[in-house]
Amino acid sequence: MREAYREDLSSVVEDLVLMTERVVTAVHLSTRALLEADLALAEQVITDDAVLDAQHDDLEARCFVLLARQAPVAGELRTIVAAMRMVADLVRMGDLACHVAKIARLRYPTKAVPEGLVPNFELMARVAEGMVATAGRALSERNAHDAAKLADSDEEMDELRKSQFRILLGTEWPYSVEAAVDVALLGRYYERIADHAVIMASRVIYVVTGNHPAGDNWTYA
Amino acid sequence: MREAYREDLSSVVEDLVLMTERVVTAVHLSTRALLEADLALAEQVITDDAVLDAQHDDLEARCFVLLARQAPVAGELRTIVAAMRMVADLVRMGDLACHVAKIARLRYPTKAVPEGLVPNFELMARVAEGMVATAGRALSERNAHDAAKLADSDEEMDELRKSQFRILLGTEWPYSVEAAVDVALLGRYYERIADHAVIMASRVIYVVTGNHPAGDNWTYA
Repeated sequence: MREAYREDLSSVVEDLVLMTERVVTAVHLSTRALLEADLALAEQVITDDAVLDAQHDDLEARCFVLLARQAPVAGELRTIVAAMRMVADLVRMGDLACHVAKIARLRYPTKAVPEGLVPNFELMARVAEGMVATAGRALSERNAHDAAKLADSDEEMDELRKSQFRILLGTEWPYSVEAAVDVALLGRYYERIADHAVIMASRVIYVVTGNHPAGDNWTYA
Repeated sequence: MREAYREDLSSVVEDLVLMTERVVTAVHLSTRALLEADLALAEQVITDDAVLDAQHDDLEARCFVLLARQAPVAGELRTIVAAMRMVADLVRMGDLACHVAKIARLRYPTKAVPEGLVPNFELMARVAEGMVATAGRALSERNAHDAAKLADSDEEMDELRKSQFRILLGTEWPYSVEAAVDVALLGRYYERIADHAVIMASRVIYVVTGNHPAGDNWTYA
């Protein structure tokens, strides 16, 4: 019985890692849909999000059953509690990737992101994808050290957002108000994906070390 | 021992209700700070958020102890799991009220919201405050029926956001690009506060009925 329980618990963690990979794909594809005004790709990201929602519901239910049947303590309880949180972070990251895809769809065939901002968004997406992937790897390897590095990548994301605002609010914004609004909201979505990756990393640190990381970088955790 | 445990559990719920009241205040004051360009008030909201953060950490720890020591099942387990989620929703709502206050502070002494949008934001804030208050009341009274009504208020919020976009993206936006960006992000913050109130309501329904509410209105839950 305990054996079966351990297997259930590790399969929960494995499925969280798979969900993380699915989120990385969603962020990657929604960014391509956005920057290339690819309607089919945008629709695909939006449709595929239902899979993340289903995985969320399934994992949440399995964690609840583990709590109810096994009365876990110590490290196992930490893992289950953290898993319930991480699954919420992951489904939310998927929603945010969906929001990006929906703006791409809304503006199609026009590109929502003006030429001058494309490099900025390419970087934001790369940083966000990398952060989510790192969080997933840290979880699967129970690597608190790699998880801790995510706070640094988040500063990189903050810098990208700041440079985006400098362009947006510079003396002459050569594009439309609509473009400014889209850029501001899109930037917010990528920033939030990165925030959730940092929160997820903080949960990995908690699972592995038993302590919540301290410091401003972990404010959202 | 079980008696003490039941008291611990109800004190967790009581403190969640108190946190909800604190969030309502934060949303109210941050809106006044925003619409009246009141720097002192903005600073107060930002400072007071630390109290919500501390309550979050405290409640999270108490829920964990209840799980570890009492091996709760059925309704009690549901309550503790939901409480761990609601405390995360509440601290997030506080962060969002802080974001509103920070935009007020950033633009001071200018008002971030142009005259033409003030009525829209007053309504948004009133709806958001009302939704958070309703969620708190539904929790304290274990009233799934009132909780279910929140999905309707959320549609009201969506309508307000749409009318905001109609003004923003109408043929002539008479204000600056900076104002457009502020309005878009501020609108997003209020919308997210409302989303979290709906999520919280769905958790109340789960605690009381044992089932997660179904339907699109509860997508974020």
